[in-house]
Amino acid sequence: MTAKNAFYAQSGGVTAVINASACGVLETARLYPEKIAKVYAGRNGIIGALTEDLIDTSLEPIENIAALRYTPSGAFGSCRYKLKGLEQNKAEYERLIEVFKAHNIGYFFYNGGGDSQDTSYKVSQIGESLGYPMTCIGIPKTVDNDLPVTDTCPGFGSVAKYVAVSIREANFDVASMAKTSTKVFVMEVMGRHAGWIAAAGGLATEKEGDGPHIILFPEIQLDEEKFIAKVDESVKKYGYCSIVVSEGLKNAEGKFLSEAGTKDAFGHVQLGGVAPVIANMVKAKLGYKYHWAVADYLQRAARHIASKTDVEQAYAVGKAAVEFAVNGKNAVMPTIVRVSNAPYQWEIGSANLADVANVERKMPRDFISADGFHISASCREYLQPLIMGEDYPTYVNGLPRYVELNNIAVAKILNTEFKVK
Amino acid sequence: MTAKNAFYAQSGGVTAVINASACGVLETARLYPEKIAKVYAGRNGIIGALTEDLIDTSLEPIENIAALRYTPSGAFGSCRYKLKGLEQNKAEYERLIEVFKAHNIGYFFYNGGGDSQDTSYKVSQIGESLGYPMTCIGIPKTVDNDLPVTDTCPGFGSVAKYVAVSIREANFDVASMAKTSTKVFVMEVMGRHAGWIAAAGGLATEKEGDGPHIILFPEIQLDEEKFIAKVDESVKKYGYCSIVVSEGLKNAEGKFLSEAGTKDAFGHVQLGGVAPVIANMVKAKLGYKYHWAVADYLQRAARHIASKTDVEQAYAVGKAAVEFAVNGKNAVMPTIVRVSNAPYQWEIGSANLADVANVERKMPRDFISADGFHISASCREYLQPLIMGEDYPTYVNGLPRYVELNNIAVAKILNTEFKVK
Repeated sequence: MTAKNAFYAQSGGVTAVINASACGVLETARLYPEKIAKVYAGRNGIIGALTEDLIDTSLEPIENIAALRYTPSGAFGSCRYKLKGLEQNKAEYERLIEVFKAHNIGYFFYNGGGDSQDTSYKVSQIGESLGYPMTCIGIPKTVDNDLPVTDTCPGFGSVAKYVAVSIREANFDVASMAKTSTKVFVMEVMGRHAGWIAAAGGLATEKEGDGPHIILFPEIQLDEEKFIAKVDESVKKYGYCSIVVSEGLKNAEGKFLSEAGTKDAFGHVQLGGVAPVIANMVKAKLGYKYHWAVADYLQRAARHIASKTDVEQAYAVGKAAVEFAVNGKNAVMPTIVRVSNAPYQWEIGSANLADVANVERKMPRDFISADGFHISASCREYLQPLIMGEDYPTYVNGLPRYVELNNIAVAKILNTEFKVK
Repeated sequence: MTAKNAFYAQSGGVTAVINASACGVLETARLYPEKIAKVYAGRNGIIGALTEDLIDTSLEPIENIAALRYTPSGAFGSCRYKLKGLEQNKAEYERLIEVFKAHNIGYFFYNGGGDSQDTSYKVSQIGESLGYPMTCIGIPKTVDNDLPVTDTCPGFGSVAKYVAVSIREANFDVASMAKTSTKVFVMEVMGRHAGWIAAAGGLATEKEGDGPHIILFPEIQLDEEKFIAKVDESVKKYGYCSIVVSEGLKNAEGKFLSEAGTKDAFGHVQLGGVAPVIANMVKAKLGYKYHWAVADYLQRAARHIASKTDVEQAYAVGKAAVEFAVNGKNAVMPTIVRVSNAPYQWEIGSANLADVANVERKMPRDFISADGFHISASCREYLQPLIMGEDYPTYVNGLPRYVELNNIAVAKILNTEFKVK
């Protein structure tokens, strides 16, 4: 068997460590020249494959590849683009195979969340049926931590660490000002459908009285009366109340609070953010002075405070993906398997893409405390190891030195235009 | 001369490094037992003095004092409480002197911004006129960087670093997603009256094309048309547009954008945040997908990414304050004097409180680029050294270990109630 080229692409929302997975893929692929010739990356994810816009990673200096481990975001560009089902848009899959065939690509590595694993799975099927069988390996990535089978998803641990560190720091700030100033602080975090990221804020609570005093999960519809009573209790007991709220919080009618009815003077729906809605609710009912923050992209891009555990796992799944491929595995995704909690030990496992595609892992109800306002002991036990360790980037001029790749294009062979819908 | 006790208090909004100044005061005071007996800290700032609620720092273990260097926020509690003028409320000053006299306090160290330096100055005057002369030393602190005389204010460098690091990370994120998703990112930072903090975001721009592409300063009223054109230009040229906006941005009529007219369905003024206003403006005019973040307290509490330069200067002004006091200086404030830019060198200077009290240092117009949307080369030269160096706290369980002091109260002597207004 002669060596074939490999295709690698990043998909969906980027993270602080998806480039660490890319680093794992690229550094490992270079160890198997008899099987993998070159790795071509898709510029802007799968769109790069559809439009034959490929990047020749073999032209990238080795130190740039190494620096990916310390660089947040998607170094080759990512995209939000979901391939449709095989029946609805077979042309897209045929185009992929056409491009892969033209560039002698025999390996497909797709780094993303649930949708992307679905794509990887479909590519593995269609290649077979179109007479161009490929080795398709998914690489897990999502800050949402909602992929099944794997114990955790690379990208999540670093967001979790950012959120826990940030709310701890804000707690200290508010606690010292509460006597005469802000008494309620609200921090909004990501997680439209699942409360994993909000839950991570709970790690900052290590003893009685530590904030956050309240976590508002998308899984628990807001009971306004209970919530307000809890805020008041915290302020009276601890001097202040610190709140982490998920962007996906819903009201009693099941509607997102961030969209629930408030309109500005021009009739526009209120400009977004559940944090200001919650803060204003507290102000209206209790009169306490508040402050609020919306972390948004800062949380998922915060490579400067990435979890070392997360970085190592991100690298490891990239490395394992290549090892799976060169060892003849197909239609699988490396997973993180938790071996033990104390000491925390993990190893790489394997999941069939068929079992991963389009399955969303919810946060178990027993990971949330009985009153619905904090995490349970079992949730803490699960989350704790994921934020362990620091893995600082290099700083130049007081700023982290993140790499920007040269991303030199592979010469087009087909040169046929393909319109991405 | 027998040793007298010292009073130390933290005032106004806290920072990532005000406790480093406290550490400098306490560790240095312990070196001069023949002059300074004990340091009593005011619980919740000057309110602690007025209500005779003093903390005996001599009872705090030495390792807790040392840990203050790595702990954000105000460890003794701070307050937003401005003493009135001597004429308007002489009773407050008389009360201070009464408490200080009762506790044999001969030194007054007040750690804060412009208002606090005014208080220090007044205390130095009133002590004299009431026949209880005291040594009054101000210690500079403010993230707003608006104290005169001193080259910079401890607290600012760390916010500056946080803002520059955060916007750089967000830039990388948005750049990699812009092809199919978010094209405009807006990050709101503090600075109601001066654009120092927003300016710091400009340090992330090191070469053509680097974000932030636009900085919106409180000093420059928003020209909406020019702004929108600039956003569009950035998106077309670089694929995305990254914006840092100061909370104090004003519109052409001189009104804060965060309060300029938008009301929700109940007639409440729009819940705050200029970032969503700017983001929505872009969406309405250009249709680009946007994301926005509001860093709020996270920026000034972010000890995890503090500037080493800032930490060292914060410690140094605390240390110098004590050295000034034991060397007989009075009614002064230690300052940071810039000796050279390359290599950056600084030393401690001294300012008279009379020259510092209630003087606000604005950002020079020539620190802003001619078009009003970025920083100038001279601004960069000024800001660059202030974010240099990292000074990481210790981590336990994946989280920074910040100290919470025991804060044991000094037994009251007066026991007379004093109502703080």
